[in-house]
Amino acid sequence: MGGTSNRVEDLSHVVNLEPTLPTLDSNIPPFEIHKVPLPPNKTTFQSLKQRLSEVFFPDDPLHQFKGQTCFWKIVLAIQYLFPIFQWGPDYSLNLLKSDVISGLTIASLAIPQGISYAKLANLPPIIGLYSSFVPPLVYAILGSSRDLAVGPVSIASLVMGSMLREMVSPSTDPVLYLKLAFTSTFFAGVFQASLGLLRLGFIVDFLSKPTLIGFMSGAAIIVSLQQLKGLLGIVHFTTKMGLIPVMISAVKREHEWAWQTILMGLCFLAFLLIARHISLRNPKLFWVSAAAPLTSVVLSTFIVFIFKAQAHGIQIIGHLQKGLNPPSVNMLLFSGPYLALAVKTGLITGILSLTEGIAVGRTFASLKNYQVDGNKEMMAIGLMNMAGSCTSCYVTTGSFSRSAVNYNAGSRTAVSNIVMASTVLVTLLFLMPLFHYTPSVILAAIIITAVFGLIDFGALVRLWRVDKLDFLACLSALVGVLFLSVSTGLSIAVGVSLFKILMHVTRPNTVILGNVPGTASYRDMGQYREAQRVPALLIIRVESPIYFANSTYLHERILRWVREEEDRAKAMKENSIKCIVLDMAAVTSIDTSGMEALLELKKILEKRSIQLVMANPVGGVTEKLHRSKAIETLGSNCLYMTVGEAVASVSSEFKEQV
Amino acid sequence: MGGTSNRVEDLSHVVNLEPTLPTLDSNIPPFEIHKVPLPPNKTTFQSLKQRLSEVFFPDDPLHQFKGQTCFWKIVLAIQYLFPIFQWGPDYSLNLLKSDVISGLTIASLAIPQGISYAKLANLPPIIGLYSSFVPPLVYAILGSSRDLAVGPVSIASLVMGSMLREMVSPSTDPVLYLKLAFTSTFFAGVFQASLGLLRLGFIVDFLSKPTLIGFMSGAAIIVSLQQLKGLLGIVHFTTKMGLIPVMISAVKREHEWAWQTILMGLCFLAFLLIARHISLRNPKLFWVSAAAPLTSVVLSTFIVFIFKAQAHGIQIIGHLQKGLNPPSVNMLLFSGPYLALAVKTGLITGILSLTEGIAVGRTFASLKNYQVDGNKEMMAIGLMNMAGSCTSCYVTTGSFSRSAVNYNAGSRTAVSNIVMASTVLVTLLFLMPLFHYTPSVILAAIIITAVFGLIDFGALVRLWRVDKLDFLACLSALVGVLFLSVSTGLSIAVGVSLFKILMHVTRPNTVILGNVPGTASYRDMGQYREAQRVPALLIIRVESPIYFANSTYLHERILRWVREEEDRAKAMKENSIKCIVLDMAAVTSIDTSGMEALLELKKILEKRSIQLVMANPVGGVTEKLHRSKAIETLGSNCLYMTVGEAVASVSSEFKEQV
Repeated sequence: MGGTSNRVEDLSHVVNLEPTLPTLDSNIPPFEIHKVPLPPNKTTFQSLKQRLSEVFFPDDPLHQFKGQTCFWKIVLAIQYLFPIFQWGPDYSLNLLKSDVISGLTIASLAIPQGISYAKLANLPPIIGLYSSFVPPLVYAILGSSRDLAVGPVSIASLVMGSMLREMVSPSTDPVLYLKLAFTSTFFAGVFQASLGLLRLGFIVDFLSKPTLIGFMSGAAIIVSLQQLKGLLGIVHFTTKMGLIPVMISAVKREHEWAWQTILMGLCFLAFLLIARHISLRNPKLFWVSAAAPLTSVVLSTFIVFIFKAQAHGIQIIGHLQKGLNPPSVNMLLFSGPYLALAVKTGLITGILSLTEGIAVGRTFASLKNYQVDGNKEMMAIGLMNMAGSCTSCYVTTGSFSRSAVNYNAGSRTAVSNIVMASTVLVTLLFLMPLFHYTPSVILAAIIITAVFGLIDFGALVRLWRVDKLDFLACLSALVGVLFLSVSTGLSIAVGVSLFKILMHVTRPNTVILGNVPGTASYRDMGQYREAQRVPALLIIRVESPIYFANSTYLHERILRWVREEEDRAKAMKENSIKCIVLDMAAVTSIDTSGMEALLELKKILEKRSIQLVMANPVGGVTEKLHRSKAIETLGSNCLYMTVGEAVASVSSEFKEQV
Repeated sequence: MGGTSNRVEDLSHVVNLEPTLPTLDSNIPPFEIHKVPLPPNKTTFQSLKQRLSEVFFPDDPLHQFKGQTCFWKIVLAIQYLFPIFQWGPDYSLNLLKSDVISGLTIASLAIPQGISYAKLANLPPIIGLYSSFVPPLVYAILGSSRDLAVGPVSIASLVMGSMLREMVSPSTDPVLYLKLAFTSTFFAGVFQASLGLLRLGFIVDFLSKPTLIGFMSGAAIIVSLQQLKGLLGIVHFTTKMGLIPVMISAVKREHEWAWQTILMGLCFLAFLLIARHISLRNPKLFWVSAAAPLTSVVLSTFIVFIFKAQAHGIQIIGHLQKGLNPPSVNMLLFSGPYLALAVKTGLITGILSLTEGIAVGRTFASLKNYQVDGNKEMMAIGLMNMAGSCTSCYVTTGSFSRSAVNYNAGSRTAVSNIVMASTVLVTLLFLMPLFHYTPSVILAAIIITAVFGLIDFGALVRLWRVDKLDFLACLSALVGVLFLSVSTGLSIAVGVSLFKILMHVTRPNTVILGNVPGTASYRDMGQYREAQRVPALLIIRVESPIYFANSTYLHERILRWVREEEDRAKAMKENSIKCIVLDMAAVTSIDTSGMEALLELKKILEKRSIQLVMANPVGGVTEKLHRSKAIETLGSNCLYMTVGEAVASVSSEFKEQV
């Protein structure tokens, strides 16, 4: 085998380059016909087991346990459940140094972002800090990513805020609102953990990347516009989320605009955007954009304190409670009229935060060339949120912006999350009064800067160029979020993605194949312009499984090819078609409706004295054709290993008839 | 080309049978590498146009108009819209003779069935006769099937009856119920006609045959059990549709059982079933089962009349109005609280009756070898129901049982429908009083006999043997209809079918290919046991488009293959893998997520110094790889026309390196 035999096989091309070898032509057919074998017989239980393990355990998570002693199996199991035991024993001072630096860096980002994102979710600012303390600690023990910086994120905060506010006002009924936020977080965690436990992680894949790009761009625009409230100093702002009501509200409330707030906001926004720009241009200066939010907070708080600016119309955060996360188990609602809302909000924020967390984890894992187990990550994130909901935290996940800073700051393990949590702990215990004079406008500026990078119109152009249906999914998510609502936009986009799959399944491609001169290969005549028709034969490649959803279409489409080919042959005065060869290489499965369509086709073609043969059926299809006895009607010699053999065999039959 | 050149190509196998040709081995590589060309460049508009015409006009309905003069185009258009003008001019006395015989035969079946099915839908019996008069006439003009016998059918009657009765009682509010029935019929017609007009006929395909078998078996059982009311002579029967409440009600009402009714019912049921059995055994005696219902009606009516049996507890139909269909346009409801119910009932009965009508039309068309245009049929059936809803008819379609009788009785054209309608007309005008004494128990017996053939448990066994997922769809439809409700059962079954598609898309097969000795073909090593591994190469065939829904899975699955193959190679002390060849023949499309997964894979494999090449990409995939510039990252020489060429080229590179 190997090099030698491959060369021998490929002699075919050399031989084929000679146009004719007349000496052989009158002999016995010189080709060899290979039988299409059935795959080895399996019991129903065996094939079910194989299928289920392929569906639920495609990564074969137990492969490392194979062939280990009992002791090592237990050790591996503990390491599997708590990755901290995997890297913990090898932890060194050197690693700690890197982790402390990166941990402090992300803490300087996490504190102002935590306060801001809590505001985005219409929650008290302190909840954002609580959420940056417990969840990172839980993740450090359970999570398998080394670079994920855990905490509240903009998208999940926005979605939770907008969904809950539709039914409960955070200003008139703050306690109920808070209860709903914790309950939603709990359900988000339960949902995430059970997806991981039931190994249904692939549900996340249905939010395709184009969909997410559109959704995030739309959400980022909405979030930025919502910040006009803080940036312009408006007191009574609309609670709606659509683009149009927000714009109208901002303009209509012109009399509430405060120039002091606007000036301060614009200055710090410019500062933050410039810092971001510097870090983008030179990744080594990552600390510039990482330190900018905390600097802005400190600076603006100082300015307000010195100039007593709160008296001049600049809104400030006000009193913040000192102390650690209070328990919140008693605030979870498991009955009452708002339960459905909490479950729904939990599901949507849960799946969104999961998508972000897993995508971020995978991105950085692939940069450092290690694997992140999706289902295990889901369980870690889910348990983290369940723990969070009992300790006054709202939905958290791996944040893209903070993880990038973490990675750039040189984080090596999840210890950077522990360092960050410790810094937040110190803040919660001792530094809370310092935030009393922090102006709200700074939080608005921080949010705008954070979500700014999510707006990606360039992606729309790229998608349009490459894939029109991906473009449509992206655009519909964007437009849906902007003009309808966050959850509507998301459902439309998922609908478009599903439609794309169904479209492909119900209207699969069929192409006519021709012989590539000098080879035994048959290829699409539209793609390979040198490919040549085989007279009296029509070779059709069906590019999809044959299913109930497309069997009628394929049946009619093949008959149309026959009709068109016969018209063409008549016009060109060629021989009429005597045989149809179906190239089944891409027919990766067939169901009972598909087999009936084939039998029907055979019957119709037989009446017109056209033969029907099939080339290169995959194992599953061969098996089903045999098992259903369809093969008896189609003729036991209708299956060939290659199109070439089918063509040769059928052509020699014709010759014998003549 | 043709026979000669095919033989030349297949010389390859002859040459390949010789194990080695050492003389060539040290020369220049003797294989020729073919470029994978891009399909011809198309503008966005062109490809969109092609795609849309493939989706909506796969049958190319205008092909017969091509190259005709203006006059003929008009003639063809009229013939296209009104098929009666197509066969009308050639109509002969000979054809008429056959059509009169078959028309009278189906009329003798249609009259008792019409009355029975109307009862099934909780409508006055006369509505069933009205529905056998106008719709067949409309269909005779518009329909393209020559064998379809049009009228009320059991499934649509049952579904309409059960759906409407859930909200409105036919006994306490008969006028509203009747209005809703006509309105539902109108919406069913509008829905059917617009599906045809918008060329969305493929929606019908989502009701796969296994689903329908399960649904119909379940519905037939429920219908039969419901007839216990008539058969046992029970007056107060449950209005529920589930298996359990119906059984309980039948047993609990034991005191209402009337032995006279039971005796009469069982006698006639036995008579009808025996007649049916005779016709099934000998199709030439089709008239036995066709005439049996009318005979039973006449006979039983006569018995009741003579013995005054109505006084002995046998329920009779009672007074029936004489006269033609009264107009019912004024009874259509386009507002009010029940509009949603009418629309929903219309949609479901519409799609069910469409499925039956089209399936029946296609079945008999294929037996006689002519084509039925699905979209045109939908418009015909839709217009027929819209016309029906304005003339006191409820939902009608092509009935399977009556069409089979029609076909067996030798019908030649749609004139048999006209003959049937005329017979019904005579009945409506003159014979209605004769049905006064017809006992209800006979109608129950007729319904049971009619739906008996729909119960098909054998199909469950066959499906289990051939396709487990089809079995599941069938079983869930059956169980859903039996124990939940008709519409729930249907939705569950459609859900299972969609799940089947999505499952196949999210978890596609990947198989390892090996060289079939003596050929240049590479085939599934699980299927072809003689196939041999190529050392240092891993050839993987991906059996699905690479999509957002499966890109993560495929990425991880391929890496798992690599891991397993490396473990195997290590255990067998073979060379480690140097290159992965992806056989892309079955990758019929790729989207942006799919391309990213490929690039990601390339990056990871590169770090392990493993090459990645692809063989036999289809036109669309080649185009997208080029358009997205992914090809630049993958390497411009990563595409090969065949797996054989890829293997030869890569192997020769290795050799050069050594």
